[in-house]
Amino acid sequence: MRIARFSLNDVPKYAFVQQDENDSKDYLVVLDGYPLGGRPVAPTGERYPLDGDGIRLLSPVIPSKVFGLAKNYDAHARFMHEQGQSDQAQAPSEMVVFTKPSTSVIGPDDPIVMPSYSNNMNFEPEVAVVIGRIAKNVPVEHAMEYVLGFTCVNDVTLRDLQGMDPMWTRSKGFDTSCPLGPWIETELNWKDAAISFTLNGEDVPEASGTTANLIHGIPEQIASISAFSTLLPGDVILTGTPHASGQLKPGDETVVHVEGIGSLRNVVVRG
Amino acid sequence: MRIARFSLNDVPKYAFVQQDENDSKDYLVVLDGYPLGGRPVAPTGERYPLDGDGIRLLSPVIPSKVFGLAKNYDAHARFMHEQGQSDQAQAPSEMVVFTKPSTSVIGPDDPIVMPSYSNNMNFEPEVAVVIGRIAKNVPVEHAMEYVLGFTCVNDVTLRDLQGMDPMWTRSKGFDTSCPLGPWIETELNWKDAAISFTLNGEDVPEASGTTANLIHGIPEQIASISAFSTLLPGDVILTGTPHASGQLKPGDETVVHVEGIGSLRNVVVRG
Repeated sequence: MRIARFSLNDVPKYAFVQQDENDSKDYLVVLDGYPLGGRPVAPTGERYPLDGDGIRLLSPVIPSKVFGLAKNYDAHARFMHEQGQSDQAQAPSEMVVFTKPSTSVIGPDDPIVMPSYSNNMNFEPEVAVVIGRIAKNVPVEHAMEYVLGFTCVNDVTLRDLQGMDPMWTRSKGFDTSCPLGPWIETELNWKDAAISFTLNGEDVPEASGTTANLIHGIPEQIASISAFSTLLPGDVILTGTPHASGQLKPGDETVVHVEGIGSLRNVVVRG
Repeated sequence: MRIARFSLNDVPKYAFVQQDENDSKDYLVVLDGYPLGGRPVAPTGERYPLDGDGIRLLSPVIPSKVFGLAKNYDAHARFMHEQGQSDQAQAPSEMVVFTKPSTSVIGPDDPIVMPSYSNNMNFEPEVAVVIGRIAKNVPVEHAMEYVLGFTCVNDVTLRDLQGMDPMWTRSKGFDTSCPLGPWIETELNWKDAAISFTLNGEDVPEASGTTANLIHGIPEQIASISAFSTLLPGDVILTGTPHASGQLKPGDETVVHVEGIGSLRNVVVRG
């Protein structure tokens, strides 16, 4: 099931995204409530074509917080070492977790605003986990019960700021650094979901990968994070970028694609 | 003016804290709305003694995010170096900013839960700034116009985890790591506010200091942070701890005192 948040003439609503059997087109089937509020939601009867006039997909959630994993694929750890961004060619054995504030989150087609003080902004396509229930001290074997679903994320990073910003607060937390979308997919083969990235319509093969190669798997991430911080419904975990990242410049069109979820498109503008 | 959030029989409300001219006691003068919602609020006529039955002060705000400054006093930078926690005896010239999630925030008298996986939890008494208006790219000379007021904070830190946790996400972001309170004081001499700390009723003189010795001043903090991240009403900036920190153990009673604000008391329990 796909759960979207969208606005019609600036009024935000939640919807299931469903294909019509007759015309094979995707529709937004509007819901009568908030799917993360703990109460059952039902269709209102209202329905709009996904590509209809005045329809705008929004970030599928507004998380209270976003956690992210650094160097959670061997190929990415090697890439960062080859780029001179890391002393180590191997990922650290301990899970390295950072945060992005809720104000960094944007939705599909929203502009990624490259700050005036950066000249090396990088893309990092990833799978994002959306938490569905309050999670504290969750054991690994029950972790997936706390997941509502998955979405695409671009963990946009100011590479030139990371050196003077040891906590990555600016470099990964600046406004617009967390594009999320296009919707939450509840039924993903999360053990082997293929991630790919296109820049200005061209595939960037060295940025692709699959969650099968995650160092710290998704249940382990939820268990480890919930051991120190209570995860709330709508909170998001960025699972890591699989391999290469690369530079973005104003005017660039970015598309993060995760097989089984869909595509998240954004365009870069200068701040 | 002092703005408090409190609960009476578990119902949360906002109030001004005002001294009665007749009995010289402090009262909670209940407000008819949320003082950070952008609309004027007025007393409802309801009033309770601050120390009344069933009255419990809460964290004065629930921030969307908390930013903190690392090593923002020379005396603290030297202390951390002497403790072997830092290679450098001097504070970095660039402002080092970290974050704490909203789920780390607790209020006055709430327990600080020392996680089972830490054996070196430290106190760090500080002045916290509470943002009152949406702030983005605020110039230094206008920064104080975005401040609602000030409160006390204990930037509780798991010192033994900082090494394997380069972003300090666990060590400074764990649940209960951000005690805030007792209220928001809108009229503080923020250029020279004295900070002190008592542990189990004993003054810890080496933990004290004054905001007069801040390396990056409060207006500079707001300008610098709002240059990369939009600050929302209720967001909080921890301005830095002035000098020494020290270990906490289960059963300890901590009191952060800021002259002109008041005292924030918490007790440590084992998680």
